[in-house]
Amino acid sequence: MGHLIRVAGIAALTLLALIRVQGDEGMWTFDNPPRQLWRERYQFEPSAAWLDHLRLSSVRLVEGTGGGSASFVSASGLILTNQHVAAGQLQKLSTAERDLVKDGFSASTPEGELKCPDLEANVLVSYEDVTAQVQGAVSPGASDAEAAAARRAAMATIEQASTRATGLRSDVVSLYAGGEYWLYRYKRYTDIRLVFAPEEAVAYFGGDYDNFTFPRHDLDVAFLRAYEDGRPARTEHFLRWSASGAADGEFVVLSGQPGSTDRLLTLTQIVYQRDVGNPLQRRVWESRRDALKAFASLGAEQARRAAGWIRSLENSLKRLVGQQQGLENPRIIARKAAEEQALRAKGTANPSWQSQFGGAWDRIDALYREVPSMAPRLAFSTLGASRLGGYATTLVRYQEELKKPSETRLEEFRDSRLEALRFNLFSAAPVYLDLEEAVLAGWLEEARRALGTDDPFVKSALQGREPRDVAREVMTGTRLGDVKTRRALIDEGVSDSTIAGDPLLALARRIDPVARSLRDWQDQTLRSVEASAGQQIAAARFSAYGKSVYPDATFTLRLGYGRVLGYEEDTTLVPWKTTFFGLYDRAEAFANKPPFALPERWARRRASLALETPLNFVYTVDTIGGNSGSPIVNRAGELVGVNFDSNQQKLPNRYLYVDDSEGSRAVAVHSAAIVEALEKLYDARPLVAELSRSPAGR
Amino acid sequence: MGHLIRVAGIAALTLLALIRVQGDEGMWTFDNPPRQLWRERYQFEPSAAWLDHLRLSSVRLVEGTGGGSASFVSASGLILTNQHVAAGQLQKLSTAERDLVKDGFSASTPEGELKCPDLEANVLVSYEDVTAQVQGAVSPGASDAEAAAARRAAMATIEQASTRATGLRSDVVSLYAGGEYWLYRYKRYTDIRLVFAPEEAVAYFGGDYDNFTFPRHDLDVAFLRAYEDGRPARTEHFLRWSASGAADGEFVVLSGQPGSTDRLLTLTQIVYQRDVGNPLQRRVWESRRDALKAFASLGAEQARRAAGWIRSLENSLKRLVGQQQGLENPRIIARKAAEEQALRAKGTANPSWQSQFGGAWDRIDALYREVPSMAPRLAFSTLGASRLGGYATTLVRYQEELKKPSETRLEEFRDSRLEALRFNLFSAAPVYLDLEEAVLAGWLEEARRALGTDDPFVKSALQGREPRDVAREVMTGTRLGDVKTRRALIDEGVSDSTIAGDPLLALARRIDPVARSLRDWQDQTLRSVEASAGQQIAAARFSAYGKSVYPDATFTLRLGYGRVLGYEEDTTLVPWKTTFFGLYDRAEAFANKPPFALPERWARRRASLALETPLNFVYTVDTIGGNSGSPIVNRAGELVGVNFDSNQQKLPNRYLYVDDSEGSRAVAVHSAAIVEALEKLYDARPLVAELSRSPAGR
Repeated sequence: MGHLIRVAGIAALTLLALIRVQGDEGMWTFDNPPRQLWRERYQFEPSAAWLDHLRLSSVRLVEGTGGGSASFVSASGLILTNQHVAAGQLQKLSTAERDLVKDGFSASTPEGELKCPDLEANVLVSYEDVTAQVQGAVSPGASDAEAAAARRAAMATIEQASTRATGLRSDVVSLYAGGEYWLYRYKRYTDIRLVFAPEEAVAYFGGDYDNFTFPRHDLDVAFLRAYEDGRPARTEHFLRWSASGAADGEFVVLSGQPGSTDRLLTLTQIVYQRDVGNPLQRRVWESRRDALKAFASLGAEQARRAAGWIRSLENSLKRLVGQQQGLENPRIIARKAAEEQALRAKGTANPSWQSQFGGAWDRIDALYREVPSMAPRLAFSTLGASRLGGYATTLVRYQEELKKPSETRLEEFRDSRLEALRFNLFSAAPVYLDLEEAVLAGWLEEARRALGTDDPFVKSALQGREPRDVAREVMTGTRLGDVKTRRALIDEGVSDSTIAGDPLLALARRIDPVARSLRDWQDQTLRSVEASAGQQIAAARFSAYGKSVYPDATFTLRLGYGRVLGYEEDTTLVPWKTTFFGLYDRAEAFANKPPFALPERWARRRASLALETPLNFVYTVDTIGGNSGSPIVNRAGELVGVNFDSNQQKLPNRYLYVDDSEGSRAVAVHSAAIVEALEKLYDARPLVAELSRSPAGR
Repeated sequence: MGHLIRVAGIAALTLLALIRVQGDEGMWTFDNPPRQLWRERYQFEPSAAWLDHLRLSSVRLVEGTGGGSASFVSASGLILTNQHVAAGQLQKLSTAERDLVKDGFSASTPEGELKCPDLEANVLVSYEDVTAQVQGAVSPGASDAEAAAARRAAMATIEQASTRATGLRSDVVSLYAGGEYWLYRYKRYTDIRLVFAPEEAVAYFGGDYDNFTFPRHDLDVAFLRAYEDGRPARTEHFLRWSASGAADGEFVVLSGQPGSTDRLLTLTQIVYQRDVGNPLQRRVWESRRDALKAFASLGAEQARRAAGWIRSLENSLKRLVGQQQGLENPRIIARKAAEEQALRAKGTANPSWQSQFGGAWDRIDALYREVPSMAPRLAFSTLGASRLGGYATTLVRYQEELKKPSETRLEEFRDSRLEALRFNLFSAAPVYLDLEEAVLAGWLEEARRALGTDDPFVKSALQGREPRDVAREVMTGTRLGDVKTRRALIDEGVSDSTIAGDPLLALARRIDPVARSLRDWQDQTLRSVEASAGQQIAAARFSAYGKSVYPDATFTLRLGYGRVLGYEEDTTLVPWKTTFFGLYDRAEAFANKPPFALPERWARRRASLALETPLNFVYTVDTIGGNSGSPIVNRAGELVGVNFDSNQQKLPNRYLYVDDSEGSRAVAVHSAAIVEALEKLYDARPLVAELSRSPAGR
């Protein structure tokens, strides 16, 4: 299931990651692949060209604050990803009369391909180490907050210069908790069209029940196409389709965008996550899901409008529960504690080590005495998951931020980020005011419950009224649902009288002082202490364990590797793959009732399928949310499958690597299943032909 | 998997069972079905005729010290059971050239049906409460040992009188730890022939891995036929075959022979089992298995000879590990402790209660201070699992025992049991002396390791020599492998010179004093204290909780009931059934490698199968080892499936009922799969026709 970047204040923070490698561990940057390990363990020595080709065939999909992974699979911009990664666009392209989520979609001609409202595709075309420039911007003796501001300014300047010089999306990324800074330049595609998606019933067969389990039977794939200048993009680099697909025991490499890991939190931070952060996150998501479910129960069309969001929240919740079970496992906490103790023990007898690194843990401890009381305020003092609420917040801040020099603005308003901000704001996706109202009302209700009526945010948001009345008023009165209005407000400016005339903008303005003060605390206290203490701990780890390490995940391009491999569970063996036989078995065993109901064509055309075709498989690569849609390639660089999930055993790997000997596995769709279904069930022979068309010599 | 009665001294002891009912709990005697519960919970009110018909269609299969359950399924004596229940006979009917275990068997004509060497079938034709007679035989003021002897004598007298009067096998059974005694009369069939068994690869698909798991894909069935006077027995009562078989959610009744439960052990006894009894049992079985595996590794024919035994031991070990995990679960021990505390608390303020029942727990505690030191001696001071060793022990005791009055003999030599003893002793099953030697050598080796060289048994058995030398000598020199010799020894008597002339008989004679003294301790101390204290505790439970209870399992006929029902596991749903689709999926996923390899005909004829046919299913009936082969019937009394296993979640139910809400389930073969496979794969249409032939009006 897909990657949703966590949006609650605390949970989104990531920290350092300098990790000793065991098992098939690691989310490696392309500048530092684990060459020695590959050579020694797998006799695998890829050329620079092999790696470049894989990187340039890899695609990051971005949609609002979420996204996923993908790859080019033809010379004409064809993109393979998961149905659940594309599901947001499928939902936005649907209407009451045409439900692309439920019914799927298959373009029979190029002209029939549907333009996605707000999906962006990025390809990492170059990267550059800018650590010296960023760290050099900090004056000696600067406070944590001053140092953080100086680094932010330097990053903004570097990004802006790169964008100007190259026209490419340019992001400075902090790796190893600021141990390194890299400038990543992306080719952006903003005209992405939908080519093919199967019915959700088979893409998400088994629903929330089967999510994060194996054996699994999901055709969780979708095809998109990147366009440039109104024509299919010509993509020199794309992955050749393997004729046979993944095989038992095979060595594979994965290239994708793991979203976020927290593997080197200090013990204090881990315990905080366990006791405060995760329970709070769970409350946030559950309240959203419950509001959506109440809305969905009102009728079929309401259910359609809320379905994708509910699915996504249930996915997040199920993952969170699995991660939390990891944290509640005394063995895992003990392992974290032992790691920390071992690192700190190296310094106890060493005064210089002590003076360089020793205070970092205490500073984190001091900080985290403050965090629990701030956390609910950070989590709830926003307009929550309401899409229009998010637009309103952006709009009321836009003018104010743009008056400042780029490098002192809130991060998302930096010059280099404005294009992405506008792309998101000007999305043509349909807005459902009834859904927005229900979501906002539920959110304000929960915020009041969590924070109390005397809380500054609650007071300014509600002004003593009932959440449902406020939500009804703002959603009935706002004009932000119309993309032309939003465009005009950016073009012409958001005046005080405009804000006064739009109740949603007025609400966003009312809460902004509270929200900004919390954001300031987060940026200037929480993040800056974590960054500087984290950098110290990172340095301590470097000094203790050397440099064969990988950074925590940051939703940027990474390499994974491992083997296609079954495992043991509950006294028996879980095989490496499932087949179409298994899909029909499970559908039949549940009398074809949702979420185990197969689309009608799957029943009707069953006889035409080779039932022994592999459908899903498991493998040992170290992945996490955000890796959904990642291509899996063999030694020849051919695509053998597409990643879409993990099993339960793997979920604690947000906090530490779970060795594959514990049955931890990633789950993928086998390439053979895709072709078999496209040909035999969906009559998509041109698409299959396009997949098979490879340039000579690759 | 099948029932093997535990043979080690301690573990074979069962104790009282007066249990409050929750869930679909209980192994009910036919004289006391849970009518009220059925009526209230399932609106099920069977007539006396319905119950009689089910009872008279139910068959107990007995083979040596093991056995299983079965049912009549035609008017011509056709019996349905599990392949694994029949596997002992399949093995005994096999030769190096004809392996019925591996290749299966299908008689194409009645004349082709193969006579089983030593399988007995029992049908419970009548039963009678003899509690007053047995308990009345005890004089007031008798010691525990005297009381036990008096009861044994009364039971022997009752059995003998019944056998004489009716010609039926007559067993007095102690239920509720001696709270009740019942005389059970059985019609015996000793000419049982093999009609059909599938290849073990599909009967036991998944092997030891999939054993005790679900989803499951085993065609674990076999058909036998009872003969009388050389012709198929005419069986008035038999189960009609359901046209559609078990359905999701359906209420079902099971009739079978659960082997042994220990649900009302005191806490002291439970803790003993956990800490001493089960680990010792495990050591006994593991040492046997290891000896057999070493033998099997010598060649293909050796492997064939040992295979069934190894399978059976691996089954027992996997079950034991599951049971032990239950005991090691603090929650389960806590529940047992709370139950005991609650019962004893009822008496604390009641002097009469105290004087009647109060001392029972202390007497058990005192006894169990002795048991741990005796247990290894009881377990190892025998000739182990060697079949010829067992014959030798019987033969050297035979004359001596038969000199005594029936009621004072060791139980198995009572007049009423002699027929069964001879049937077992005169088995025509092939004896493999090389296998016997390997088993005995391994056993003596382990006994010496466990007991030490100074132990009386070890000294008398080995006389200072090496186990392998003793085993080689006795198996090379013995004539007991020939059934004619054994028959002659019984007919003509076992003289001292005969014993001196047969080294195996000589060995059995040497160890007999030690073995007898231990048997005496077991009968006169252990069993008599347990029986009298157990009877007191049973009475305490009666007085506290009333009479709606069922006795612990005793390998006699019982009723179970429940629903066909899936369950939740690891965040997802396990469906109520599997289908042939699932079988092919799992075979394919493991590349058709053993133990996931399908027989050749299953690959060749796949296209002819309706793949959606249900194969196995789960249901909530309370079962245990011995219930293998039990028929499962619907409200109409039609056969809808045949029980063959439990899942892991259910294994602790030896010690306490595991509620179905915890996912505990029995596992059965669906009746539809049997017919589909017989017709489409095995060309056994006459057999299918026989199953469908029902008398009108049933």
